Amino acid sequence: MKLCGKPLRNRANSKFDPPDLHRCFREEGHSGKCEEFPYLRHLATCSPKVAKKIMRDSTKTTGAAWKSDDAGPNRISRWVMLLSDQELKALGIKMDMLKPIVVSKLRDKAATYDQCMNVAMSLTYSTYGMARAPAPTPEIKSYLESFFGPIVVGSTVCLVCKAPLDYADFALARRGKAELETAHSSPRSHTAKNVGFAHRLCNIAQGDRSVKEFYAWIKTILQRTGEL
Amino acid sequence: MKLCGKPLRNRANSKFDPPDLHRCFREEGHSGKCEEFPYLRHLATCSPKVAKKIMRDSTKTTGAAWKSDDAGPNRISRWVMLLSDQELKALGIKMDMLKPIVVSKLRDKAATYDQCMNVAMSLTYSTYGMARAPAPTPEIKSYLESFFGPIVVGSTVCLVCKAPLDYADFALARRGKAELETAHSSPRSHTAKNVGFAHRLCNIAQGDRSVKEFYAWIKTILQRTGEL
Repeated sequence: MKLCGKPLRNRANSKFDPPDLHRCFREEGHSGKCEEFPYLRHLATCSPKVAKKIMRDSTKTTGAAWKSDDAGPNRISRWVMLLSDQELKALGIKMDMLKPIVVSKLRDKAATYDQCMNVAMSLTYSTYGMARAPAPTPEIKSYLESFFGPIVVGSTVCLVCKAPLDYADFALARRGKAELETAHSSPRSHTAKNVGFAHRLCNIAQGDRSVKEFYAWIKTILQRTGEL
Repeated sequence: MKLCGKPLRNRANSKFDPPDLHRCFREEGHSGKCEEFPYLRHLATCSPKVAKKIMRDSTKTTGAAWKSDDAGPNRISRWVMLLSDQELKALGIKMDMLKPIVVSKLRDKAATYDQCMNVAMSLTYSTYGMARAPAPTPEIKSYLESFFGPIVVGSTVCLVCKAPLDYADFALARRGKAELETAHSSPRSHTAKNVGFAHRLCNIAQGDRSVKEFYAWIKTILQRTGEL
């Protein structure tokens, strides 16, 4: 599918975004207004929290769980983390004031606008592939399928444990933490191919490792305990 | 070894402790002052942080990582959590004001004074069994060995991944979190047999599961991914 791609000049952009960064992702030649996340229109009505989560997780760095002066900016656009320390300073973010570990964590989250938009699209597709997911509108279905292939309900699995994910788990939360999280196969690559959903406990267990490293690690454990 | 067992009346006890709860753990008929943690005397000089960690983890509930009115008391003695809601109310802890999940987490940490003291002893023994651990004094060595058998340097393994633990890892810490943590094979049993040290990442991966459940879980994952 060819996309409209017109810049969204009227979008409330932050001072961090260069002009014309945000674009229209509707089909080329569409009628009506341009839109950045047209494929989220349906989820935004039936489960606004899931739609917001997809937008946030695909485009923003994670929130700082700890509060301190050197914790760094909370939930900033991932593409801003591609700017140099000097460029960021001009925008009011003093990277040199942050602890090295915070800087590296923030820099690890860097991704281009296009990468982020691909992730948002792919997460939306994965959502519709979950067991008990609502059916997308025909328009959104054919839009997403043109990029990723047929939507098969029940085919979306946890990025880590590979068990099928249940859309109803989006509604579960423990102490403000979602049961389903956005996860990365390799922690430092924010691309549609590398990003998916995972159970919260699976994501925690994976930690800072790649999924491959995680598998190798748990295999070693089972070998050591004699379970293999 | 028979222990002295005299009550430590001069110990600065909290209002939560019944009189004569704290006892002397030196050998029966010892000379000099009574002591509650005589086997920690050596670690207390060469690595006071480790000695304090052993005392704290064996006798106290975990700290509340979150700060709020309903988070519950932070680091309270485990035996206090054996008291009834009514008894606790008289002591100023209003369990009925806490969220059910906080209550159950606190109650899960409950253990008798004797259980806690056994855990402290066993953790000290495990520490001396770590690779690169300092050698205990002959007195402490024979004290601990009389309870747990010969101390073999390099024999202490991570409770979860079963890899040998390195005493030097006690000194490592990331953002205030120790690299070695006290862990439970089964999360709800604070006994010498069930408690040990684990790598921080292993403890996190284990989560709220028993080690057995953790192994079963990771086995399922490897079966699902075709790695087995």
